[in-house]
Amino acid sequence: MEGHGGYNRSSRVQAAGLSPAVPLLEHAARMVTLPAEPHPIVIADYGSSEGRNSLEPITVAIRALRKRAGSNQAISVMHTDLPDNDFRVLFRTLVNDPNSYLAGDTKVFPATVGRSFYEQILPANSVTLGWSSWAVQWLSRAPAQIPDQIQVAYSEDPGTRAAFAAQAAADWRTFLIHRGSELHANGRLVVLTMAVDDAGDFGYRPVLDAMYGTLVKMVDENFISADELSRMTIPTVGRSRSDFMAPFAEVSEDGRFANLIVEELEVFQGEDRLWAEFQRDGDAHAFGSQWAAFSRASAFPTLAADLDGGGKDPRAAEFANRLEAGMAATLAAAPERTLIPLARMVFRKV
Amino acid sequence: MEGHGGYNRSSRVQAAGLSPAVPLLEHAARMVTLPAEPHPIVIADYGSSEGRNSLEPITVAIRALRKRAGSNQAISVMHTDLPDNDFRVLFRTLVNDPNSYLAGDTKVFPATVGRSFYEQILPANSVTLGWSSWAVQWLSRAPAQIPDQIQVAYSEDPGTRAAFAAQAAADWRTFLIHRGSELHANGRLVVLTMAVDDAGDFGYRPVLDAMYGTLVKMVDENFISADELSRMTIPTVGRSRSDFMAPFAEVSEDGRFANLIVEELEVFQGEDRLWAEFQRDGDAHAFGSQWAAFSRASAFPTLAADLDGGGKDPRAAEFANRLEAGMAATLAAAPERTLIPLARMVFRKV
Repeated sequence: MEGHGGYNRSSRVQAAGLSPAVPLLEHAARMVTLPAEPHPIVIADYGSSEGRNSLEPITVAIRALRKRAGSNQAISVMHTDLPDNDFRVLFRTLVNDPNSYLAGDTKVFPATVGRSFYEQILPANSVTLGWSSWAVQWLSRAPAQIPDQIQVAYSEDPGTRAAFAAQAAADWRTFLIHRGSELHANGRLVVLTMAVDDAGDFGYRPVLDAMYGTLVKMVDENFISADELSRMTIPTVGRSRSDFMAPFAEVSEDGRFANLIVEELEVFQGEDRLWAEFQRDGDAHAFGSQWAAFSRASAFPTLAADLDGGGKDPRAAEFANRLEAGMAATLAAAPERTLIPLARMVFRKV
Repeated sequence: MEGHGGYNRSSRVQAAGLSPAVPLLEHAARMVTLPAEPHPIVIADYGSSEGRNSLEPITVAIRALRKRAGSNQAISVMHTDLPDNDFRVLFRTLVNDPNSYLAGDTKVFPATVGRSFYEQILPANSVTLGWSSWAVQWLSRAPAQIPDQIQVAYSEDPGTRAAFAAQAAADWRTFLIHRGSELHANGRLVVLTMAVDDAGDFGYRPVLDAMYGTLVKMVDENFISADELSRMTIPTVGRSRSDFMAPFAEVSEDGRFANLIVEELEVFQGEDRLWAEFQRDGDAHAFGSQWAAFSRASAFPTLAADLDGGGKDPRAAEFANRLEAGMAATLAAAPERTLIPLARMVFRKV
């Protein structure tokens, strides 16, 4: 991690991509079956990171649920992420921020689960409403090194592409199976995640080119070794519409998988808010800097972990500084719109 | 905090004090009413810190509950502590440690709550079995500075003593009120906490004398200012048997408070394990060092927060090193048994 709160501070690109699924979450909150009191309504936030991007959707969901359940029924909010996630930032925000969903509602009870969502991490039949935003594009593991890239989408190595595709397919099934266990009957799961668009485009091309180009230059300058670069991998994937549907299409004729049915699935282009800002103000420097800062928060810790000394390598801070500066300069030199293919989905437990 | 895992590493004194309440927890696990499936059994661990001292009691509780509930019913374990607690260490331990209560039981679901237990932090009527060990001696706030000490028990200032006594009484009621809400009918809460013995003795005299003496010396040496020392306060209290009973004695004739009744209350002397070791091996140096290391983990962060620059004061590391070294030398020069008055209690929700 980039220090406490680093992810919160630099997640504007993702925050910009968040709102497209909030209306689906709000609708789902109106449709789910509510548990009978005194049992709590349970909202699960799968892949919360440090929580900043969760506040708006969870606030919206709670508001919709309160209209139906009244002010007395308890609502539990389970924020989940990997064990190393810094949940302190999340709790500090929830406890201290006047815009926190805790403010003014004493019957909302947040908790965190530091375990991978590729396992069952909440009791069976306990979740009323699930939310997962910008999370399930992260694979459970990188199944291979990528010889010619850091992101498999732009690798031209067929074996590597096949290995990642297989992992992506397996992880998607695993994710759905466990969420299918955790949801209670007629509960909903709303997912926003990276996708490939209907032309097969993963997007982010200029950003990833700037990142990979800067890393190659670091090798040329002997700041990192070729071995280190060859290990560096961002284990994210964009899935296609048919990838998302595959488990439902294959397994049975009634369109069910893991007791889930697909209520909604849309692949669409997220707004490149930094590009829109650049078009307004023409500030190429700001454009490059902001994409670089976003990349630093979301991807550099993963890359730095593959330095010879891991994330604690003495070069780690300098590595991040150089990579950020190199990306910022490259992107500022030739600002370009970035495609951000996304998918939003709603699943219902039957 | 003293860095990741610092508390876990240096909590042997408290670990030594833990086991006296585990038999009560095991008994309570046999007595509580279990929720009907599919609702989970909920264990709450109030004041978990980084979790090391929770593993044994929670493992014992789960084993006792499994004998009654079978292997299929979900058991949620809610570990709570303040927002700044490092729950990453706890999750890493739970996920990776082969002795974790998660190992071999896929139906146990840990979660953490980073909020003060002086609020309601879990849904009403949701907790089957509560556990709180070495936690409720920490007041919600220090109600006053202590002019002549860092620990109110050895202050001779009547106004300060009265202010702390009032805060201790209020906090104890607040703690019970919220646990009374959170427990479900016939659930139990087991508490182990610091106490004063029936002679009114808080204990820890040699340790606190060594700590305060070293701090006074630091003022003499101009390493800290007299102002800084006057602010330093460890906001813990030992309560007497009658303090613990006060809410139950005063409020009603049937011995209930906050829908709780006292099933068991015992004030006793904890074992001074470091003294026992010293008696075996005669190693005064180890005796002093271990008490000093324990003090560093449990109390120094609280003291360092009152440096002019707070916990991030540039002197903070040196402050802790000097204080630990001074205490270790003082305690090694004249090893002495330390009284450790404790109370163990069981409450039942009616």
